[in-house]
Amino acid sequence: MLNIPVHLASRSYDIKVGEGILSSAGSVLAALGKEQKISRAVIITDENVCKFGYAETVYDSILDADLSCSLISIPAGEQSKCVHEAEYLWNTLLELGADRKSVVITVGGGVVGDLGGFAAATFARGIRFFQIPTTLLAQVDSSVGGKVGIDLPLAKNMVGAFHQPLGVLVDVDVLQTLPEEQYLCGLGEVVKYAVSLDAELFRFLKDNAEKINRRDRTVLQQIVADCCRIKAAIVADDERETTGRRALLNYGHTFGHAFEIMSGFTLLHGKGVVLGSICAAKLAVKLGMINEALFEQHLELFRLLNLPFELPADIDWDRCFALMKHDKKAEFQNVKFVLPTGLGTCVLKEVPDSTQTLFGPQ
Amino acid sequence: MLNIPVHLASRSYDIKVGEGILSSAGSVLAALGKEQKISRAVIITDENVCKFGYAETVYDSILDADLSCSLISIPAGEQSKCVHEAEYLWNTLLELGADRKSVVITVGGGVVGDLGGFAAATFARGIRFFQIPTTLLAQVDSSVGGKVGIDLPLAKNMVGAFHQPLGVLVDVDVLQTLPEEQYLCGLGEVVKYAVSLDAELFRFLKDNAEKINRRDRTVLQQIVADCCRIKAAIVADDERETTGRRALLNYGHTFGHAFEIMSGFTLLHGKGVVLGSICAAKLAVKLGMINEALFEQHLELFRLLNLPFELPADIDWDRCFALMKHDKKAEFQNVKFVLPTGLGTCVLKEVPDSTQTLFGPQ
Repeated sequence: MLNIPVHLASRSYDIKVGEGILSSAGSVLAALGKEQKISRAVIITDENVCKFGYAETVYDSILDADLSCSLISIPAGEQSKCVHEAEYLWNTLLELGADRKSVVITVGGGVVGDLGGFAAATFARGIRFFQIPTTLLAQVDSSVGGKVGIDLPLAKNMVGAFHQPLGVLVDVDVLQTLPEEQYLCGLGEVVKYAVSLDAELFRFLKDNAEKINRRDRTVLQQIVADCCRIKAAIVADDERETTGRRALLNYGHTFGHAFEIMSGFTLLHGKGVVLGSICAAKLAVKLGMINEALFEQHLELFRLLNLPFELPADIDWDRCFALMKHDKKAEFQNVKFVLPTGLGTCVLKEVPDSTQTLFGPQ
Repeated sequence: MLNIPVHLASRSYDIKVGEGILSSAGSVLAALGKEQKISRAVIITDENVCKFGYAETVYDSILDADLSCSLISIPAGEQSKCVHEAEYLWNTLLELGADRKSVVITVGGGVVGDLGGFAAATFARGIRFFQIPTTLLAQVDSSVGGKVGIDLPLAKNMVGAFHQPLGVLVDVDVLQTLPEEQYLCGLGEVVKYAVSLDAELFRFLKDNAEKINRRDRTVLQQIVADCCRIKAAIVADDERETTGRRALLNYGHTFGHAFEIMSGFTLLHGKGVVLGSICAAKLAVKLGMINEALFEQHLELFRLLNLPFELPADIDWDRCFALMKHDKKAEFQNVKFVLPTGLGTCVLKEVPDSTQTLFGPQ
């Protein structure tokens, strides 16, 4: 089992990464509760996760650790990240007798973590929560950083809080049952870390592509641990997203988010990030920031990992650039991009409107 | 104008108390926005406050200070402190173009401050807010401490956050239009501070009772400033309610809250606190913690300020004690009371069940 310590101004905690460790959740939690007694554990999960018995394993292990435990299951899917489900969780927590000394345990992907974390951040003005992410994307991304929240009908993640967990437990065994599409989405984020922030991870992914494609447990542990370490270091520098440092985690996300919107959200987030990463690298080539050879190296890694690396031919670039002006990083109508400066390094750079002419029919 | 500095771990800010200072809100806000530019000010208020033109005065002063400003009005009353209104505020903030650099300004009583503050605490994971309390209760109580939130159908203040304001502006002029009943409720909280925490304030109230009863502006400024200072000192010691020190602010609230519930919430909070204060003092006498003479001194001050100091004859003490077991301060079924130990001093004390026999038919 690998242990990644996260040191933040508001809280320090550990991310434990291993295989077959789901059933140790109860003992990990009991140990964490020694300092401040836990009155009750409430698992928040979704129907998909229940199907494979993962939430039940966690539930049993918590009972075995002599803690009171309840389980709430919500419908799977992004549409659950809404005010209505948050309200359901608040009322159910109250009904179950949760109080200030209770702990919420989220067992699921990004939706469960974000929604359940938001319920924990606001119930009784904030109670503790513990994360057990069960998708690759959640394991490498949303389990570090403390961002919790819900969507509004017109804007994703618009309501939320920064609420750091008591701890995180990652069992890579659960990735064996993940649908291929979701697995590739997670890999898209993994490659993002490699390309923009860590040359060593880039080489590791390249050297182990075949093992990654057959979901080798040992390699997956290493990858998840590396990504968490990379993200934790950046979040520690900029916990509340005030210095701009945290924006570096958004490589590929500016183009990517525009593509997601243009697809009417039928394009999955991880795929959007992959396509966005290609555009960002291409833009960096055109601006003379990296050479064509490095761009080809990026494409080669995408190819090795079966990631969709072809941009559709019919992209409406005018609309794409217009959408990017609404990006959260945009200021005074100038879009800021995270652009590569070499293998595993990047900068946040304001790019003037005229850049738009670099794209379009070639 | 009086200035009360509040120094907290998470933020330091000033409470400005004066008369006729509502129209300076814009310039105060503009000065506070120098460090981090304000993109837009959004006033949240209610119909009652609009009736007297107070929100309009603030709105005009903000425009005069060259800031963009919008105004949202919600229905007056405790029933607005709900998920539904929070959702309305989140969506409206988004519609109005509020972003991370916007500031919410709450102009109203406790409901507006708690609800609007909660919207600010959670919109875009937390934006700044500025408080302009317009009831005596909000001026002396909810404008200090950073507690924001909403009610659930089965529990008051069950969902919320700790979110400290950018600043607070108190204009005692607005108290002239406050209905008598609401004014007396605010005085109930003022007396709470005096009896349990500040002997000097107790004497000041006694010596100025006649001026207080005719709402003398100079005396009111002094009282509001004193109460804010007392509360700020305690909150600074225990910002997140973890050490127990903050519980001392709850003098009279344990009995008081039970009385509120028993009345089906027809008993106003301030009146509940007055009746609760009498019970707490009476309990302290019966436990030998204070003498009968001090108890009489309390009653005399209540009488001078026209506060309802008679306990109804038909109180169901069994139900009252049963309800108090659900108090947030209760632990393992033993109720904790804030009890006086002298004039202006008190302690948090666990009292065993047998105390119940001290009450009841005499």
